[in-house]
Amino acid sequence: ISYIILKLYYRSHLELREITNIFYISLTAPDAQASKFGSLWPLPQKVQISEVSFKLTSSSFKIVDAKESSAGPSCSLLQDAYRRYYEYMFGSTKKLGLSKSRRTGPSELTELQVWITSPDSECDDYPSVTSDESYELSVDLPFAVLKAPKVWGALHGLETFSQLLYEDEYGAKSVNATTISDFPRFAHRGILLDSSRHFLPIKVILANLETMAMNKFNVFHWHIVDDQSFPYLSRTFPQLSQQGAYHPYTHVYTPADVKMVIEFARLRGIRVIPEFDTPGHTQSWGKGQKDLLTPCYSGSKPSGTFGPINPILNTTYDFMNQFFKEISTVFPDAYVHLGGDEVDFTCWRSNPDIQLQQTGIILHPKVCFSFIVKLLDIVTTTNKGYMIWQEVFDNGVKLKPDTLIHVWKGNQEQYQNEMANVTSSGYQTLLSTPWYLNRISYGQDWHGYYKADPQDFKGTEEQKKLVIGGEACLWGEYVDATNLTPRLWPRASAVAERLWSAKDVTDINDAFNRLSMHRCRMVERGIPAEPLFSSYCPREYKGI
Amino acid sequence: ISYIILKLYYRSHLELREITNIFYISLTAPDAQASKFGSLWPLPQKVQISEVSFKLTSSSFKIVDAKESSAGPSCSLLQDAYRRYYEYMFGSTKKLGLSKSRRTGPSELTELQVWITSPDSECDDYPSVTSDESYELSVDLPFAVLKAPKVWGALHGLETFSQLLYEDEYGAKSVNATTISDFPRFAHRGILLDSSRHFLPIKVILANLETMAMNKFNVFHWHIVDDQSFPYLSRTFPQLSQQGAYHPYTHVYTPADVKMVIEFARLRGIRVIPEFDTPGHTQSWGKGQKDLLTPCYSGSKPSGTFGPINPILNTTYDFMNQFFKEISTVFPDAYVHLGGDEVDFTCWRSNPDIQLQQTGIILHPKVCFSFIVKLLDIVTTTNKGYMIWQEVFDNGVKLKPDTLIHVWKGNQEQYQNEMANVTSSGYQTLLSTPWYLNRISYGQDWHGYYKADPQDFKGTEEQKKLVIGGEACLWGEYVDATNLTPRLWPRASAVAERLWSAKDVTDINDAFNRLSMHRCRMVERGIPAEPLFSSYCPREYKGI
Repeated sequence: ISYIILKLYYRSHLELREITNIFYISLTAPDAQASKFGSLWPLPQKVQISEVSFKLTSSSFKIVDAKESSAGPSCSLLQDAYRRYYEYMFGSTKKLGLSKSRRTGPSELTELQVWITSPDSECDDYPSVTSDESYELSVDLPFAVLKAPKVWGALHGLETFSQLLYEDEYGAKSVNATTISDFPRFAHRGILLDSSRHFLPIKVILANLETMAMNKFNVFHWHIVDDQSFPYLSRTFPQLSQQGAYHPYTHVYTPADVKMVIEFARLRGIRVIPEFDTPGHTQSWGKGQKDLLTPCYSGSKPSGTFGPINPILNTTYDFMNQFFKEISTVFPDAYVHLGGDEVDFTCWRSNPDIQLQQTGIILHPKVCFSFIVKLLDIVTTTNKGYMIWQEVFDNGVKLKPDTLIHVWKGNQEQYQNEMANVTSSGYQTLLSTPWYLNRISYGQDWHGYYKADPQDFKGTEEQKKLVIGGEACLWGEYVDATNLTPRLWPRASAVAERLWSAKDVTDINDAFNRLSMHRCRMVERGIPAEPLFSSYCPREYKGI
Repeated sequence: ISYIILKLYYRSHLELREITNIFYISLTAPDAQASKFGSLWPLPQKVQISEVSFKLTSSSFKIVDAKESSAGPSCSLLQDAYRRYYEYMFGSTKKLGLSKSRRTGPSELTELQVWITSPDSECDDYPSVTSDESYELSVDLPFAVLKAPKVWGALHGLETFSQLLYEDEYGAKSVNATTISDFPRFAHRGILLDSSRHFLPIKVILANLETMAMNKFNVFHWHIVDDQSFPYLSRTFPQLSQQGAYHPYTHVYTPADVKMVIEFARLRGIRVIPEFDTPGHTQSWGKGQKDLLTPCYSGSKPSGTFGPINPILNTTYDFMNQFFKEISTVFPDAYVHLGGDEVDFTCWRSNPDIQLQQTGIILHPKVCFSFIVKLLDIVTTTNKGYMIWQEVFDNGVKLKPDTLIHVWKGNQEQYQNEMANVTSSGYQTLLSTPWYLNRISYGQDWHGYYKADPQDFKGTEEQKKLVIGGEACLWGEYVDATNLTPRLWPRASAVAERLWSAKDVTDINDAFNRLSMHRCRMVERGIPAEPLFSSYCPREYKGI
């Protein structure tokens, strides 16, 4: 089996134009052959592509509900997806098929039937960590069939079907007879975006949700507030963004904005998990909420600066209670990320009121400990599960058994030890350490992202099962609307394949060839995904 | 004197979210004060800003030729510039002043008079390395005056005037009474873009020329062809792009495209210097020009691969002669860049025909030597001067005294030695080594670009005078339309100030404050210039 979906030019280039002292990147060009898997990304679990090919025309081809499907025309999630993928496959300028009288050719594929097999399609639900995302795709005459227990698998199957299309030498849309059976290796496949260091306009967030769906990511971890700004407009505490946002009108997310993001994500099978990081990373909270932060002292007097959230006032917990009650209703996902990372004890240590409540050398971690314990109780009463950064586990805080420990620190050895420790304590975990995509460097750094494996640590099979996935993080110090999208894609795509495809999908040359085509497809769909190396796309990006 | 042009939020953030083993970047936020020079970038040589401020309205304000000016309404270069800057200052949606009856306020500035003082304005010329780019700007009532000997200075002065505008607390356009006297420190201030590793659509090139003008760059070094592709459509040798471009129709620069780029650049005071790099970096040339490249041998037989241009055939020089004759007519600039870097001798060494012509250990540098000597003779007959990469000088090729040696290799000590050697031999030189902007890294790498100084080497005053400037290079292996603009700006802006402003303009905090505002201005003008650090712009980028 061998065919070329997009004819990609690739030429060897002896890159000598290197500055002294900078390590050499791979000097030889990867194999210029197209992958036998074409442009599929991430690679499905089982793929069989035959040499038999069919044509498709925009005037005849239809995506329809199978008769037996439990999701009918009232399932707007699927109807929207059909429109979206029709447009990706045939372009938005073509007219929808009006020529009913046109006779279809002998090897023409005219229909993709989408068949939700479970009685409950979950069409109107939100996706969750236990959602069934599997699907089976059969491309053959007289029609292609996409079978999935739930709508979530159908969404992935539509993306996969669209990835099977290619243009033959005359530019005709074609697809080969194909059988695919697919499901994700990990249930939690996330992207973290940070809207605090820089405000991210809604348009940017939506475009990246769209791109996440093209890569089968299913969690948008919205690091929505932090020290620098508080763009979340709280109905209960509007002064938080009024005072804490970069601008109270132009740089905030209104309830309507948040609702739109959540629904846009749901329609693409993506969960939205907001992070409200406490007790550190809260400088912006203090602007609009009196007495929330700890006054730091210089000797016996307040210095005028503020530290983490003040853990010794009852008003703090009244506030947290009301605030997280609101969060639990605004964000439908079963989980909320509570942060808990990087708490600076200096200010607490300086404050005499906090000193009075504690003695002994481990006093300040204890203060933090007790704050977190109370916070977890509060969030538990809202019926939410929680994700937390690894420090909370490291400090020995008692956690609910369904808590997700988010590993982000250390070098490879350290994070592998951490994964082993967390899972041997029986907690579920997910990995981000090797996937800090904000850390840019010269050359093909996606190789490193691709090679990292969240189950690669010393532990039992039981422990490995506690790894639910990972997240690529794009922290926002150096990122805003001007550069976010090309910085994230296709580098995050490498993470997407690691988290979706089978463990043994590790051929970096095959990955290069598929990913090159996948990135050109993202470009063709209007996403400024940057190049992997010297190359061209048949249709280059139209923006600047 | 203290006023705020764009109110930039800036907050201290203790960035601890760092991966082990990666060096810490500056942890403290720079001074959050606005610069006393507002958002001026690059900083003019002499600036006096008073506290007296005037208002401007889009309905009354006009940019007009001064009566005494040697450039009148027929100078479309200036008329175009007036329109362009009016739009930058007041936005494209506002109506041009129709309300002639409106009475202007007492402290309203209604006119900027542009006065070209030299009898020959050079309006219809091309800019050159000796162009006078100086200007004087006086903002006061009853009208502001921009005086410049030539149109080139007037263009820079218009940019500077537009940078003086700010919005007062009610959003009214304002400008302070100001006196500026300005000229560039270096005559050659360039940007290298590479359209071979990735094809750059014309739209991208034009947008970056526009941005160059906002930063007072005056040379577009167009590294138009290389090993990977040959997008230049040659009238004399059309098969070069027919065979050597990534695609013969969609990925080429037609004569009309090239003409458009050159005129667009001229209207902004920017020279276009094309680079046709030989004898290495020519793999793509070989596709469309039979026998141009050296056949490499494996033992006694041709291996099927090709090396640098074949230096021992007469046909090679016939070709070069015709080719550079065309280039000399297509590109009006007095200089062409001939490359000459990174010649790989392995193939020449393997070829028995070349071996026959030479003996001794230094044979292959000699082959290169003689090729270059002949090429320089050819280009000299076209009446062009040439720029060459430093290797040609390093190899001791005899060069015309007006040759420009382009330094790009080594670490700081090495390039400083090279600058000393080149200038002590009496050649003019320009520097690129510290300004390889393709080499990205995490954090505020613009600091390094800002600190490098092309005259910082051991040498006499005479030697220092031979340094005509420098170029920021953005090689194209990892850059195309999707990511070029945010990767280049505002990092290249740091180089722009180094090359324009006085030697002692080195305050990094003041630079940070001005550059933050300058980058927001570029964003407001539609250029996706990336952020320097956590911050916001009043009007964020509208794209994705």
